[in-house]
Amino acid sequence: MTNRDDRRFLEQIGFRIRERRQELKMTQAGLGEAAELHRTFIGSVERGERNIALLSLRRIARALRVPVAELLADPNPKTA
Amino acid sequence: MTNRDDRRFLEQIGFRIRERRQELKMTQAGLGEAAELHRTFIGSVERGERNIALLSLRRIARALRVPVAELLADPNPKTA
Repeated sequence: MTNRDDRRFLEQIGFRIRERRQELKMTQAGLGEAAELHRTFIGSVERGERNIALLSLRRIARALRVPVAELLADPNPKTA
Repeated sequence: MTNRDDRRFLEQIGFRIRERRQELKMTQAGLGEAAELHRTFIGSVERGERNIALLSLRRIARALRVPVAELLADPNPKTA
């Protein structure tokens, strides 16, 4: 479905979600409950396996109390 | 599918995409071609009608030469 670069992008976002979740000492199940998403979905997002839709990402960001943009900020932007 | 607040969020993103596209003097068809997405899809995203997936948003951001996060920055964040 996705090429390697796409996958890396999704993995970066998943990594940030996991990092922030652990910072808040939340479990995947706890985050899932707060975001009204299934814990297995949270797990697959954190592993970069999901081309997640914006509204689901927003629910996760809210549950993590960070702006959506913060989960997406690209440390190595290829755009000029 | 979405509540009013979700819709407003998607509309804000769509508005930014349109603004940036017009700044670059691109048509919807031109943006669609650059992002490898159909022009009618671009139109519906700009109107906030699509709960777009991250990888599609990223293709649009690249075609517009802006970081993905810039399309998402929330002027009125509800998160603390």
